[in-house]
Amino acid sequence: MDSKFLRELLCRVQNGQINPDEAIHALKRLPFEDLGYAKIDNHRCIRTGVPEIIYCEGKTPYQIQEIVKHISQYHRNVIATRASDTIYQAIKETEINCDYNDLARIVVINPETVVHLGKIIVVSAGTSDIPVAEEAAVTAEILGNKVKRIYDVGVAGIHRLLNACDDLFTANVIVAVAGMEGALASVVGGLVSCPVIGVPTSIGYGASFGGIAALLSMLNSCAAGVSVVNIDNGFGAGYQAGLINKMAIQNVSEKP
Amino acid sequence: MDSKFLRELLCRVQNGQINPDEAIHALKRLPFEDLGYAKIDNHRCIRTGVPEIIYCEGKTPYQIQEIVKHISQYHRNVIATRASDTIYQAIKETEINCDYNDLARIVVINPETVVHLGKIIVVSAGTSDIPVAEEAAVTAEILGNKVKRIYDVGVAGIHRLLNACDDLFTANVIVAVAGMEGALASVVGGLVSCPVIGVPTSIGYGASFGGIAALLSMLNSCAAGVSVVNIDNGFGAGYQAGLINKMAIQNVSEKP
Amino acid sequence: MDSKFLRELLCRVQNGQINPDEAIHALKRLPFEDLGYAKIDNHRCIRTGVPEIIYCEGKTPYQIQEIVKHISQYHRNVIATRASDTIYQAIKETEINCDYNDLARIVVINPETVVHLGKIIVVSAGTSDIPVAEEAAVTAEILGNKVKRIYDVGVAGIHRLLNACDDLFTANVIVAVAGMEGALASVVGGLVSCPVIGVPTSIGYGASFGGIAALLSMLNSCAAGVSVVNIDNGFGAGYQAGLINKMAIQNVSEKP
Amino acid sequence: MDSKFLRELLCRVQNGQINPDEAIHALKRLPFEDLGYAKIDNHRCIRTGVPEIIYCEGKTPYQIQEIVKHISQYHRNVIATRASDTIYQAIKETEINCDYNDLARIVVINPETVVHLGKIIVVSAGTSDIPVAEEAAVTAEILGNKVKRIYDVGVAGIHRLLNACDDLFTANVIVAVAGMEGALASVVGGLVSCPVIGVPTSIGYGASFGGIAALLSMLNSCAAGVSVVNIDNGFGAGYQAGLINKMAIQNVSEKP
Amino acid sequence: MDSKFLRELLCRVQNGQINPDEAIHALKRLPFEDLGYAKIDNHRCIRTGVPEIIYCEGKTPYQIQEIVKHISQYHRNVIATRASDTIYQAIKETEINCDYNDLARIVVINPETVVHLGKIIVVSAGTSDIPVAEEAAVTAEILGNKVKRIYDVGVAGIHRLLNACDDLFTANVIVAVAGMEGALASVVGGLVSCPVIGVPTSIGYGASFGGIAALLSMLNSCAAGVSVVNIDNGFGAGYQAGLINKMAIQNVSEKP
Amino acid sequence: MDSKFLRELLCRVQNGQINPDEAIHALKRLPFEDLGYAKIDNHRCIRTGVPEIIYCEGKTPYQIQEIVKHISQYHRNVIATRASDTIYQAIKETEINCDYNDLARIVVINPETVVHLGKIIVVSAGTSDIPVAEEAAVTAEILGNKVKRIYDVGVAGIHRLLNACDDLFTANVIVAVAGMEGALASVVGGLVSCPVIGVPTSIGYGASFGGIAALLSMLNSCAAGVSVVNIDNGFGAGYQAGLINKMAIQNVSEKP
Amino acid sequence: MDSKFLRELLCRVQNGQINPDEAIHALKRLPFEDLGYAKIDNHRCIRTGVPEIIYCEGKTPYQIQEIVKHISQYHRNVIATRASDTIYQAIKETEINCDYNDLARIVVINPETVVHLGKIIVVSAGTSDIPVAEEAAVTAEILGNKVKRIYDVGVAGIHRLLNACDDLFTANVIVAVAGMEGALASVVGGLVSCPVIGVPTSIGYGASFGGIAALLSMLNSCAAGVSVVNIDNGFGAGYQAGLINKMAIQNVSEKP
Amino acid sequence: MDSKFLRELLCRVQNGQINPDEAIHALKRLPFEDLGYAKIDNHRCIRTGVPEIIYCEGKTPYQIQEIVKHISQYHRNVIATRASDTIYQAIKETEINCDYNDLARIVVINPETVVHLGKIIVVSAGTSDIPVAEEAAVTAEILGNKVKRIYDVGVAGIHRLLNACDDLFTANVIVAVAGMEGALASVVGGLVSCPVIGVPTSIGYGASFGGIAALLSMLNSCAAGVSVVNIDNGFGAGYQAGLINKMAIQNVSEKP
Repeated sequence: MDSKFLRELLCRVQNGQINPDEAIHALKRLPFEDLGYAKIDNHRCIRTGVPEIIYCEGKTPYQIQEIVKHISQYHRNVIATRASDTIYQAIKETEINCDYNDLARIVVINPETVVHLGKIIVVSAGTSDIPVAEEAAVTAEILGNKVKRIYDVGVAGIHRLLNACDDLFTANVIVAVAGMEGALASVVGGLVSCPVIGVPTSIGYGASFGGIAALLSMLNSCAAGVSVVNIDNGFGAGYQAGLINKMAIQNVSEKP
Repeated sequence: MDSKFLRELLCRVQNGQINPDEAIHALKRLPFEDLGYAKIDNHRCIRTGVPEIIYCEGKTPYQIQEIVKHISQYHRNVIATRASDTIYQAIKETEINCDYNDLARIVVINPETVVHLGKIIVVSAGTSDIPVAEEAAVTAEILGNKVKRIYDVGVAGIHRLLNACDDLFTANVIVAVAGMEGALASVVGGLVSCPVIGVPTSIGYGASFGGIAALLSMLNSCAAGVSVVNIDNGFGAGYQAGLINKMAIQNVSEKP
Repeated sequence: MDSKFLRELLCRVQNGQINPDEAIHALKRLPFEDLGYAKIDNHRCIRTGVPEIIYCEGKTPYQIQEIVKHISQYHRNVIATRASDTIYQAIKETEINCDYNDLARIVVINPETVVHLGKIIVVSAGTSDIPVAEEAAVTAEILGNKVKRIYDVGVAGIHRLLNACDDLFTANVIVAVAGMEGALASVVGGLVSCPVIGVPTSIGYGASFGGIAALLSMLNSCAAGVSVVNIDNGFGAGYQAGLINKMAIQNVSEKP
Repeated sequence: MDSKFLRELLCRVQNGQINPDEAIHALKRLPFEDLGYAKIDNHRCIRTGVPEIIYCEGKTPYQIQEIVKHISQYHRNVIATRASDTIYQAIKETEINCDYNDLARIVVINPETVVHLGKIIVVSAGTSDIPVAEEAAVTAEILGNKVKRIYDVGVAGIHRLLNACDDLFTANVIVAVAGMEGALASVVGGLVSCPVIGVPTSIGYGASFGGIAALLSMLNSCAAGVSVVNIDNGFGAGYQAGLINKMAIQNVSEKP
Repeated sequence: MDSKFLRELLCRVQNGQINPDEAIHALKRLPFEDLGYAKIDNHRCIRTGVPEIIYCEGKTPYQIQEIVKHISQYHRNVIATRASDTIYQAIKETEINCDYNDLARIVVINPETVVHLGKIIVVSAGTSDIPVAEEAAVTAEILGNKVKRIYDVGVAGIHRLLNACDDLFTANVIVAVAGMEGALASVVGGLVSCPVIGVPTSIGYGASFGGIAALLSMLNSCAAGVSVVNIDNGFGAGYQAGLINKMAIQNVSEKP
Repeated sequence: MDSKFLRELLCRVQNGQINPDEAIHALKRLPFEDLGYAKIDNHRCIRTGVPEIIYCEGKTPYQIQEIVKHISQYHRNVIATRASDTIYQAIKETEINCDYNDLARIVVINPETVVHLGKIIVVSAGTSDIPVAEEAAVTAEILGNKVKRIYDVGVAGIHRLLNACDDLFTANVIVAVAGMEGALASVVGGLVSCPVIGVPTSIGYGASFGGIAALLSMLNSCAAGVSVVNIDNGFGAGYQAGLINKMAIQNVSEKP
Repeated sequence: MDSKFLRELLCRVQNGQINPDEAIHALKRLPFEDLGYAKIDNHRCIRTGVPEIIYCEGKTPYQIQEIVKHISQYHRNVIATRASDTIYQAIKETEINCDYNDLARIVVINPETVVHLGKIIVVSAGTSDIPVAEEAAVTAEILGNKVKRIYDVGVAGIHRLLNACDDLFTANVIVAVAGMEGALASVVGGLVSCPVIGVPTSIGYGASFGGIAALLSMLNSCAAGVSVVNIDNGFGAGYQAGLINKMAIQNVSEKP
Repeated sequence: MDSKFLRELLCRVQNGQINPDEAIHALKRLPFEDLGYAKIDNHRCIRTGVPEIIYCEGKTPYQIQEIVKHISQYHRNVIATRASDTIYQAIKETEINCDYNDLARIVVINPETVVHLGKIIVVSAGTSDIPVAEEAAVTAEILGNKVKRIYDVGVAGIHRLLNACDDLFTANVIVAVAGMEGALASVVGGLVSCPVIGVPTSIGYGASFGGIAALLSMLNSCAAGVSVVNIDNGFGAGYQAGLINKMAIQNVSEKP
């Protein structure tokens, strides 16, 4: 339940549009709403500013439809990640307004335009890493952050990355997405003074072991200022980058 | 070479205290100074605001003494991590001013008082995790951040953590330090709206595999907003937490 | 061969309904019955109170049909686990009475109503963990235990779990089912005074490594009183929970 | 704070031996007592019936002395595990009454005789597994359980185990301790109808990988009714075995 | 080129049926025959008594057809392992005489009746392990060994195995096939005085890790006299068992 | 942009065939050309003598078509590796001239005859390793190296390898391709005095763990002079072998 | 209790040297003798022909002394493996006759000359592997087998191994001991027609991972006829080699 | 036996300084000399141009002394690697001329000045990697290669590496030595057109897993032209780099 819904609800009580009992009925679901197979954390949005994220893998289309119906009652810009086209079709069947970004595999439910502020840069080592990079970028954008993408700047042709240095120096936070040996995070971390979030991807073969090589590489980065999220977890990186960028946003936009 | 040294140098040229040739001699070492076994990155401080960190493991006492002598010429509050008492004694022999924090195993060379701003909270799951937590806390403090420590609040007695909630909600960034199953990062991540940096520790035995269990646990955190650094890497977490906290600091202290 | 069949057999001898030779023929198969590809452990039910469980994976439909035919002659409520719909259809072809729980992937052969006694609570961290949780719950129910399900109470929104505390305190034993970082087992273990059986699930991606992250997490639980079964082994957890709950059941139901 | 201390405190208020303010001072520490480096969970004993366990590894002798001083004020039979002789000497220096079991590496602080009820059997595969087995047995005994030890009954000479069958059949719960290939847990699990808790040990070499072989073996037990704790975690097994045995104890001793 | 073919060739020279040049042409291929993508080791049969085995996985049907054509010219009872039905059909198309055992996935080319001597026992823990057990048994039989199968005698119902003891005591060598925790090899190894070859299988799930649990278990067997082959390598076990059994066969059949 | 294209461009300016502005337009793309999802490293060919390689896995057919169109404007003999038939068809649709080697899964774009100089020998342990061996051989050939293939000379029939010794002694560099236990690299490395590049393959099953066994084997080679590339990385081995062979080529062909 | 002791005991009854009651007292300990911390398997020698082996690691000197005292009452040539010099001294203190082989770390208690029959060959890849090879060789010799040692014939200089071929062809069984890449087992396995038992050793560094590389290499041997024991398990290999060699021994020496 | 010794021997026969029988006695040891625990490969030097290397770990000082005595009779510049100071002292006791490089832990026996030709560059990421880098550099120098060292140019301060580019472009082969995330090999590999040999080191902690992180990183290098040797195997890299550099040396120095 985001603050906006909550304020509207209380205003309608104030205005006599609804009576207290009706408001109480809605507010009873504030901490969470129990569907049996899911307990929707409606309080989360008040606690963290972001509604509960729907992680689609391992859930049935029916479960997702039901969860979407309940969350969408009180929230806008709800994010469903790892959403296949099948899941997107299932959500559309609910006739709730939604958008689909197939590259990032993200569905946005009750989409609402947000202002994009601050500056997050998402860099990818290769073209094959783009789906994960997009998951990070799209997540951050939905959450109100301005994102610049710089893709295919892996260290095998380092002049491509060095060419982007002026841009990199302007970021509040950088998300570095790389598979194979994952060296991009260290090189970027050594160049800039802002926090860097490394996202290892499962791109590679043989001794990449589904992303372990890149993960270990990033965890052992010789550059200070680099932290890491799970393999292919573009969402997590975009989310945390957003949290960090917000501090600079407040800096820029909310001071008198 | 930090901005302060650079400015002083240029002022002394302006004042005629030194002649341009002497300044050029000093400035020639600006990008880095080559000791053969080490290339000291003097430019780093201008680039990132922090002088090069001395990672002591695997270096001989002699090498560390020499590196300290060169870095300390142009920098203050130089950090040497993973410093055993032997290394501390070796640094003291150089007669360069320095402080030692034996719990955090950090030596600060050319120590200089800094103002501590913003708010970083370092939480630890157990008493045994404190050395790593202190490495994070001390690093952040040297770099000018205000740090609050909340130790021994592991999830086996969750009321101890919940009791600290009011504190946690005021942090700009939280460092969560835990060994064994490392669940603390997820639980904290689910409670707060600021970024959380997880530090797995090697505390445990058997199937903790020297910290792998806690590392995997934190990488797979079901809470969004959590990123992770290497096992026992308190320094890395404290450093990145400092970068994040700086944005809020700027917010508070540098706006007119 | 369960005690009931055995008693009936002996009564029929007593009553002259069958002669001793016929009884001997049946009793010859008591220790086990040899089908060549399988040796059915008919003695098991006398030894442990539960007939042999049919683990369906890796067996051909024909083998399962034959095993079902032989076990069902002497036992009721025979459990077949990891049964796909194909296996269920194959069992139905034998025209032996059976029920299918497709979520738990369990077929019950010769189903018979049992009284559900005591109290086992099965908690799951997420919606995606429910199939494994159901395998545990259904197994326990078939074996005569009363089961309460509390699903989607993962630690990312800990108020959902704390809200269930009053329930948790009434359990004789708790089965905690979780994938990803598996922190649920530790948090539950720290809250209650009854035994907790952790079931790591393969839900997750990347560094969850098919459930290893959750498994290691649970094995390293900082809370005492937690033991663990194999990844996705809902059956094993439900079975052992049943054994533990039985002691309390005896306590309640069999004392004069 | 165990119920006994709590009752005494309240009686003394009732009797006027102390005034309410003094009682309040003591009760303020009820949820937990904060030593800075440790938050002693005094509430735990009310919640779970057992005071907080002191895990000694990774703590300094000084920290342990302080923790012991605080816990021992309100609790009896406090258990300190993984206590080296050095730690024992440190505890003795506090002049608080304590006993040391050097094989199990357990110190008991404020020891108090308890009645041993029910029946737990601890079996070990080899002589080398005994220290872990003793940690389980001693833990269970301190917590009021009757324990029978059957050691060196590994599967390489299975007649030794079969010879103990009559004993095994009388247990409420069995703890099976084994290193190397860890087959003991499966064989015991197939023989009995009570819960079995497997404890893999780090005994072995080469491909035992410090106990991984035994751990995986026990997790994959083909016998139902087996759950597992961490490698060498005799304490955890003894603790959970105690919880399970308690139900039978209640059965026997507390019913009117 | 087996000794029989070689002797026939030389006899035909002796008899003038072929001239030396023709014989030389055939003998030129004796050390090996080069097909480009394969070098058929015709000398192997003289060296080891067994013609080269055709491992089918990773080879195209065309390659297998060509290899079969060349080997079959000079050898009988040629074994092709891991042969899918598709491969069998491809071999049949060559119109060379062959038999297929679909359970063991073995094709025998130029099949010829052999006398089965000595005694190898193949035991399997479960029904699901039978395909691997059959690969061992069929391999040994083709190579002239007498094989007895005892299946589904896993340690969860140890009376089934003990019931087979009299048989086990008569074997010259035993092949023990087991997945999951693989305890069968240790228990058998402790019972008998002949060599035991353990074959871990990939049967299991979760922490069986595709057979690693059983492999480690068997490598760490506490019983002396157990050696191990690769996961699912029934062929290798059957082959080595045959080598061992031969010594006893010689004992029986070739002494004057 | 290879030197040939560059020279032609400059000649055309010299000849007045194009004016400087047109040349500048082309040269602007020299360091790299930015397609958004890919930054084509046109400078690479000048830097290393070889145009950028297109690694096809993880790229969409559309992305590959676009990359091919841009690279092919300025380069000949462009290599696309890990190209499935689908990718080959997609490239053909661009109507740019190209050849496909389906065994090696390599597409050559703008194919141009090159002279094959020096001597690289590619040996494979088995027939199943040939696809990887061919990737190495074809790569080296396209880059202008003479390659001799010696396949199916694994150590189980070592006379086949020893028979090739005279050939092996003439190589400038040897690529040794082997799966399973990967012993071939060590045996070859012990026989010759030229560098050996080991390529572990994923051929095998069970404890080959997708090529890890062969990889570790080669990394631990007891023979000096062996280095290793990633599992199944025939391309990398062929590429580096070409670099090494070039030195001998220069030796032979470019000296006056 | 070996057959010899048993026969002597019964003869003394027959001769009236001891009365039946005294014999019964001795025979009561036949199945096993219970020391509490150890159950000595006296029946083992009758079952398998070899008295129980004492594995010294993890046992205290006192425990070993007591075990030795009990076993030595009824057995000769008792083997204690992994015996450090400290353990040897402890055994000597019992004043029971014993010999120590410090290279193989084996103590023989009640040593008695045995005839060495048949032929086992133990080959080692390097000089550093000799301690493990000696453990195999000495074990086999104590058990009555003739052993030939051929050391330092690793595949990096394959002519050293080929030079030993004539010897290898005469073995009944070969034990191949190798660390690093462990290729020796495969090469030997391809040369001979007798069974080969591979013993991986922990010799190596880096990616040898304490013997895992050699272990995996041997498990994946492309040569048929190779089985494997645990890393550094010279004892196990020597023991099984002895079992295999016995069949040929019977062949040669016991036939009329 | 190097060519020089061989030629001298034959000249002395020609000159009548020794008679043929004496020469035959020496030549009998040509293929290898058998010390029992070691078979010295005297032929190796003729085969590969380099005498057998003595790997010191796992050998006793006595064994090394004996091996040194035998090899030094016929060879100069014999290399003993991984030689501790103890080993060096043991070699000195033989009174054979030798030098010790304690950083590289290499002893050179019968040292003889060699001309250093060509150009190998050894780069290290950090100061802590220098011992491994020196092992590579010293090995290459003893074998007659010219080596330039560029140390502490890790990617965290990439301007230090870029500053060395002009040097790097002149190398015939580069050895890149790095621990932690090992990114140096990829970045160097992307910059140059000569072969790069990566040496992962065990420098690091936590998730560096003793060098696995760097090893995987290098194996997955996104730059073509990089091959890898074992963790900490400076010797192997220096040796292979020497083989590669020789081709260019021949180019320069041996052509007429």
